[in-house]
This record gives sequence, C-alpha cells and structure tokens, in this order.
Amino acid sequence: MNASKSPTGSAYFIVKETEKPRTHVLSVLVNNEPGVLARVIGLFSGRGYNIDSLNVAPTHDATLSRMTIVTRGDDATVEQICKQLEKLIDSVKVINYSKTDYIDRELVLVRVSANGQNRAEICQLAELFRAKVVNVQPDNIVIEITGAETKINQFLLLVKDFGILDLTRTGVVALPRN
Amino acid sequence: MNASKSPTGSAYFIVKETEKPRTHVLSVLVNNEPGVLARVIGLFSGRGYNIDSLNVAPTHDATLSRMTIVTRGDDATVEQICKQLEKLIDSVKVINYSKTDYIDRELVLVRVSANGQNRAEICQLAELFRAKVVNVQPDNIVIEITGAETKINQFLLLVKDFGILDLTRTGVVALPRN
Repeated sequence: MNASKSPTGSAYFIVKETEKPRTHVLSVLVNNEPGVLARVIGLFSGRGYNIDSLNVAPTHDATLSRMTIVTRGDDATVEQICKQLEKLIDSVKVINYSKTDYIDRELVLVRVSANGQNRAEICQLAELFRAKVVNVQPDNIVIEITGAETKINQFLLLVKDFGILDLTRTGVVALPRN
Repeated sequence: MNASKSPTGSAYFIVKETEKPRTHVLSVLVNNEPGVLARVIGLFSGRGYNIDSLNVAPTHDATLSRMTIVTRGDDATVEQICKQLEKLIDSVKVINYSKTDYIDRELVLVRVSANGQNRAEICQLAELFRAKVVNVQPDNIVIEITGAETKINQFLLLVKDFGILDLTRTGVVALPRN
C-alpha cells in the first residue's frame, strides 16, 4: 500500500512529470514542395499550440528543407505532434531536441538609437558580446549578434536603455551535438 | 506612331519589366497571435507561390512578431500579395525590401566530415570566412557562419569537398539600411 505513495518511478509519477509545459525545439526535415509548410503549421494551430519561433530554408540537398520550430507544451502533447509530423507525406525526419544534447544558435539584427555621445559605449558592449556593428547612421547603429538565446537576451537587455528602434531575429536553429 | 516602339517609359515597357520573376525579401510585422502564421502562408500557397525561406520570431515588443519571407515571383504578383498581407487583421506593417537599400544576414550551422589530416585545413577556411568552430568530434566538426547569402554559399561550396553531413540555415533576416 505504501508503494503507491513513494516516488518509485511508477506510472503515476511519470504522468505528473510530463504534464509540465516546457520549451521544445523540433527539427523537421521535409521535401521542398509547396504546401508542406502550411500542413506542418496546421498540426500546431489545430491543437491551439502557439509557435514561439519557426524558420525554414533549403538544406545542402536542394530537394529538402529543414524547419526548426520552438514551441511550449507538455511532453505528451508535443510527442503526439511529432508522431503526426512523421506521418505527413512529405516528412523525411523529425527530431525533438529536448531529448538530446544539441547546439543551438540564433541571429539577431538590432537597430539601437546612438549619437556621438554614447556610440562608443554601445560599440564596446557589442565587442564584449562578440557582436558586429554592420551599419552606422548619425542617429543609430545596427548590430548583428549571434549565439544562444540567453546570451542574446542579455545583450538586448543591456542595449534596451539606449533605445531599441527595430529588431529582427531568426529564431533558433539547432544541430545534435553528436 | 514611333513612340510606342521606343523605350520611353510607357506603360508597355513598364509591364514588360515587372513580368520578370525575381527574388523578393518581405518583412511582415504581425500581432503575436496563434493562427497568424497560417493565414500569411495561405496567401502564398493560394497563388501557388513557393516560399524559399521564412522565419518568424518575437520582436523587442513581445506582443509583435516579425516574419521575413524570401520568395520568387514577378513584381506585380508580389505587390498584390503585399497588399493582401496589409489587409490581414493581425498585420501591422509590410515592407518589400526589393524597393529599398537593406542589410540582410543569415546564419548557418554546418557539420563537416573532418579527421586528423584535414581538420586544420577546414578550420583555416572557417577563419578566412570569419566563421566559428562550435563543436569538434573525432570524425566531424560543426561550424557556425553568418553573413549575406552569397558569402555563405561560397563557403559551403568550399567545404562541400570534405563532405557536408548535416546543415541547418535560418533563412534571411533583414532591416532597412536607414
């Protein structure tokens, strides 16, 4: 009788664990055909799942495109979505990175308000984060920064005080470490 | 009578010019709501237009997301798509970068086959392109490269001979130069 109350790795505790929503990074390799993107997105919106970020572009094999999708949900539902993605006619391979060790990177272009007084300070911040200044105007500069999401968010928090005028980010791309 | 034959900037010649399909980079700022992405993509697939690359992620204002879409088509049809994008209920701003001077960048993670003999050569190539080695395994290395599309394609052409095992690219992001 005590067994059901103690954390013995029983089905009861496993279910509890998977119910917690968390961020998932999915990679979906698909045939480069019109309409595939719409079908993939439909699987998420059909469940009322918002996509935090998504990107899709051809791979080194021009007949294939790879999508990287970041979404938030509980393990069980995301697992179901992955299985449905695998069943799509143009789907080649689906990876849920949450289960593996992976490398993730993101690229951001940000236009920061800058003048003669504070330009040097902003450029120094960019240098510390190994970011690149890619355009300078009398009243603003554009910085390109790449890295993991946390590093980028930290940089954006620092330049926010100067005034962010415009920002575009690619969303995460990832590859398994091995 | 001669006027209709000479290139005087008449409607006849303008129409000819816009009929040539070319690459367009579009930026679509939208409210960060579920279903918006599906509606935007529907406008392209409804016309049989393939999307070469697309990315979407939140901006510095968390209520807004920015999509960057690369597509190929004639000026007139892309202009029509832009007008329809502007009419979408959650659309905030649409820019066709083809008409302006803009900064574009892309990020690629590429896994290249590498061993003790050729690793140094691949790393040197990466350095020349200001790319970063982000992971090393006994039989492969992962390189992160950012830049304009042409630069990235040139690098990929060079490492192709060593063997590209895996590749993921974000697709283009862009900001107007001014």
